[in-house]
Parts: sequence; structure tokens; C-alpha cells
Amino acid sequence: MRQAGRYLPEYLATRAKAGSFMGLATNVDYATEVTLQPLERFPLDAAILFSDILTVPDAMGLGLSFEAGEGPRFARPLRDEAAISALQAPDLDKLRYVFDAVASIRRALVGRVPLIGFSGSPWTLACYMVEGAGSSDYRLVKTLMYSRPDLMHHLLAVNADAVAAYLNAQIDAGAQAVMIFDSWGGVLADGAFQAFSLAYTARVLAQLKRNGADGEPVPRIVFTKGGGLWLEAMRALDCEVLGLDWTVNLAQARTLVGEAGAGAKALQGNIDPNVLFAPPAQIEAEVAKVLQGFGTPHTDRGTTGPTHIFNLGHGISQFTPPDHVAALVSAVHGQSRALRR
Amino acid sequence: MRQAGRYLPEYLATRAKAGSFMGLATNVDYATEVTLQPLERFPLDAAILFSDILTVPDAMGLGLSFEAGEGPRFARPLRDEAAISALQAPDLDKLRYVFDAVASIRRALVGRVPLIGFSGSPWTLACYMVEGAGSSDYRLVKTLMYSRPDLMHHLLAVNADAVAAYLNAQIDAGAQAVMIFDSWGGVLADGAFQAFSLAYTARVLAQLKRNGADGEPVPRIVFTKGGGLWLEAMRALDCEVLGLDWTVNLAQARTLVGEAGAGAKALQGNIDPNVLFAPPAQIEAEVAKVLQGFGTPHTDRGTTGPTHIFNLGHGISQFTPPDHVAALVSAVHGQSRALRR
Repeated sequence: MRQAGRYLPEYLATRAKAGSFMGLATNVDYATEVTLQPLERFPLDAAILFSDILTVPDAMGLGLSFEAGEGPRFARPLRDEAAISALQAPDLDKLRYVFDAVASIRRALVGRVPLIGFSGSPWTLACYMVEGAGSSDYRLVKTLMYSRPDLMHHLLAVNADAVAAYLNAQIDAGAQAVMIFDSWGGVLADGAFQAFSLAYTARVLAQLKRNGADGEPVPRIVFTKGGGLWLEAMRALDCEVLGLDWTVNLAQARTLVGEAGAGAKALQGNIDPNVLFAPPAQIEAEVAKVLQGFGTPHTDRGTTGPTHIFNLGHGISQFTPPDHVAALVSAVHGQSRALRR
Repeated sequence: MRQAGRYLPEYLATRAKAGSFMGLATNVDYATEVTLQPLERFPLDAAILFSDILTVPDAMGLGLSFEAGEGPRFARPLRDEAAISALQAPDLDKLRYVFDAVASIRRALVGRVPLIGFSGSPWTLACYMVEGAGSSDYRLVKTLMYSRPDLMHHLLAVNADAVAAYLNAQIDAGAQAVMIFDSWGGVLADGAFQAFSLAYTARVLAQLKRNGADGEPVPRIVFTKGGGLWLEAMRALDCEVLGLDWTVNLAQARTLVGEAGAGAKALQGNIDPNVLFAPPAQIEAEVAKVLQGFGTPHTDRGTTGPTHIFNLGHGISQFTPPDHVAALVSAVHGQSRALRR
């Protein structure tokens, strides 16, 4: 969750050299460098590709940029039927810089920790593609959805097939797990979520490769911010892990989707990133609440029973003190070892 | 949910005369005029006081203003221990304009429909009081909460007692129902919500008058945006109605908290306000989904069984076409009459 990012001075230094966010993301050497920076500071258990969730619509021709101090912006958002009907999955050559970065990061990691690749979900991409930027009310994309569901389904189908091809190419390049970020699924109404977000995440999953070029299985993680009300529906997703934000009670989530049986999932999450602004003693106490909330994981590796992957519940703030991240990682490792003993 | 507001040209005309939002809210004649405006256009079943959720901290001395095109802002947000320790419930005379507006609106309504009074919840007020404005990450208020829970509990206790006194004075002035808006409860982590939001909403409810000056019972409504995961905990609240946003499945909510028995609640909500940007035929279809989602209400007036109060799931957008609101109200009345028949 922005493991490499603005809270790290070394990231800011590399970004300054690159000139812009996209300058950073599209340069293989820079992307490799910043992906590895947090691993130099903290004993993390995985690396995550440095990139953005909106690379796919950029490659579709929408023109992605990041103004200083603002979020992403598309120069050519989708605002009429003609633009949506003309939309096509991008030429993957336009995303070559991502796959090259994956391969480069894998080489640089030399097996230290696994590398996670990722994409935005079809719905989350559609939000940005129609709004043209972040939104506080999702008025434009929801106007389209409620007024012209046929056009929205077309847009989502194109996105889903494009995301699947994009993640498969990341897997071919060496990604050892892939994560789908449905950052805006939680803004949808009950019913609309299932029809316009979940169904297209499922369409992506159905097309994903199960194994990397080395034959190893590639776990698939689905994270829906604000999706805690729909966990039972997510049990039907063909993936191994569900990411959870901090509003979810881990014990309840474990009961709903984490226990062995058809569709059982490992759970990833879910501490509030704002905990990192408290002093280390409070960080340790909040880590304990999360770990104990999930409870003792199954230790029998032969089962598909509940597993907990500690993570933030969403992206880390740029204002986070790096020392507090170190305190968090140390608390997670120390406490989870004690819990499993 | 902003029933009187910027989507109505007649509201904009009155606001222009008043000069500012607070000029409008603090003038009894203007507040009465705009409260009644939507009732002139639409056959609504209730009126809601025109005011703001932040009047109480304004009366505590924080200095509320609304810049054009922006949300609320406090001139003197709470940023240190001294400011929080010094905080006290306001002199209710500073809120006289609200109680005078309630009395004036009651007179103007002459019994046409009931009048709902309201306040922000203790937690939601605290968010604005610490952040000083709206926030995308709640970093400052959560830093305080995680670092100094003692100070946060003090702030919330002062807020709760102030909100209770404020709502009681609205009841004395003639409010026939009161609503507590926990607009930002949903940003809290599981566990923190119960301790820092729900507990203080309960503290307000425990102090509220049960009857108006005329002896009639005054129903109490609690609305937590993003609170759908905590409905079971809310069943313990001493109130008659729970407001729900559009992420909640009404049938499930009815099962959890709407059926007869200890703590049973009527449910209010929950259509996505963005539905109002679709053409009338789609609005009617979405109304049907909400009404049929709840199902047939109990018609035996002697029971405390499930009741549904149709409402938006949150505030109406300023860009909403008034004709579409008319279509919504008409669809709700027509369809719910058919459903109860």
C-alpha cells in the first residue's frame, strides 16, 4: 500500500531526478530503485511493484498525468457514447515499461522476498476514466451507470479483459503474486456493487494464469476498499486472498470467508494507516489488536485453513514518520512469532 | 438530507439575499423560508430544519464559516491539549437562533407535516473541530485519537453533553423528531467506532427528552454514514430509527435490527442520491429496488415491528434536477401505496 512512496526521503530524491511521477514509473531503473528502497530500511516480507493503478487506461490513450500536490488526472476522460464505444484493450507494447520493471525488480531481488504485481479493478479504472480524476461524489460515473447501464457494462468488459492481459503479462515477466485494487468499489450501492464491480473482478480472475514462467503458483489478492459488507459474496471469487480495510472485524471476516471449505480465503490487512502517527507504544498495542483479532492462524501447511497476512488497511500517508513504520514491522514480526508459538 | 439546498433556484435566491450560509442559517425568517421551499414543490412527508451540523462547535467559539464553493471551516480548530481541556458546552443563548427557527417553522407549517431537528454526532463534530475543515484522511483527528485517547474522550464527552442540551432545546422549541448525523463514523476502524463514536451517540441519547412540550413522543433517528458493518451494535442504541446509506442491503438490515423484539428499529433510507441524475424511468426502477428490498412493512400499528421510512442514503447533490426529485417522490408514494395494499 504505497510501500515505496513519498514518506521516504530517498523516494523523493529519486522522484526529483525523474522529474515526474510518470517519469519515475516509466523508467525501469528508477522503478526498480524505488521498489527496493523500503526493503533496505525495513525487514518486509514482500516487495510490491512501483507503478500506478491507472497505467492501463493511460495506454488506452486517455493521457495520464499527476500534477504536483494533486492526484491523477486524465487529459481525455470518457464523456460520451462515441468515446466509450470506441474503447479497446490497449496494445500491451505500450505497457512494456511495466513488464520490464517487473523483470528488473525480480533480478534485483535475487529471491530475497516475493514480488507482487497489481492493477486497478475494472470498476475503479472506470471511475477515473469517466470522472477524469478523483471525485468526492462519483456523480459522472454513477450518472452513466444509472442512465446507461449498457454503456457502463461495455466499458467494464473492455477494462476487465485489458486488466487480465496486463496482469498475465506481469506474471510472465516474473510477478509472484498479483493484487487487484478495487479502491472505489465501496462507493457503490448494494446490488450495484455486485453487478458493476464484483462481476468484472471475477471476469479478470477467470482469465488469469495460475502459474508463473517458473511453474510456481501465483496467488491472487482482491482488495475492495469499503467492501466489508460484501464479504460473503466475495467468497465466490476465484482468488486466494481478500484484502480488508480497517472497518472490518477480522474475527467476523475469518468466520465468514476465512475458514476452511469451498471458497475459503486468506485475509490480508487491516490496520488503520493513521495508527502510524501515534508513538511506538500505541502502535504496538494497535498491532496486538489486529493480530489477536484474527486469532491463531492454522499452522498445518497441508490445509487451506485461515491465514492472516498483516498489512495496512489502505495506503500509507506521505506524512508518516519512517521510524514508526520500523516500529510497526518490528511489532508485527515479534508479536506474530509469539502468537504462533 | 439537504432537502432545502443549492439544487433549488429559490434557495439560491434566498441565500443571495442573506449574503452567506451562516447569514441564512442565523436569520429566523430566512431559515423558515428555505425550510419550507421544498415542501412547496414536492409532496414530502416531513420537513427538516434548515441549519448546519456544526452550529454547536461554532457556539463553543471555534468560528464557523463557509467559503464560496468550499465546505465548512473553523477559524480556531482544536490543535493542542490546552484548547481541548478548556473546551466547554456552549451557552445555549448563542444557539437561540436555531431554537427560534424551530419555533417559527412549526408555526409556519401549521401541522402540515412534522418537523425534524438535528445535530452532528459527538465524533463527527470532533472530526471538524480538530481538522478545522473536511478531510480526505482524518489524519489530525486520528492522530489525536490514537496518541492521546484520554484527550479524545474528554472532547467527545463535552460534545455529547452539548449535543444533548442542544437537541433538548430543539425539542422544547417544537422539533417533533430529532436526528443525529454521524457523517464520519464510517471512517473509524472496527473497535474505534464503538469506543469513540457509538458510545458518545449513546451518551447523547441517554440525555434526550422523550416528549415535546405538547406531550407527544419525539422519535430519535441515528444515521451513521458508512456504518453498515456495525448495525448489530447499533441495535443496542436507545433510539427508534436507524438511517442507512446505499451500501446497506435493506433486507439484511431488517433481519438484523428491524424485526420486532428488544431494540428493534425502524429503518430510514437508502437510495443513492446519484440515482437522481438518471431519467425518470430509471429513477422509478431504482425506487422499486429499495422498496422491494425492505419488503412489506408491518401494517399493524399496535406492534413495534419493522417500518421503512424512504429517504436518500446521504445528502442530495447541488447539481440535481428538481424535476427528478419530483419523479422520485411520486414514485415512492405510488409504489409504496401499492406495496401496502
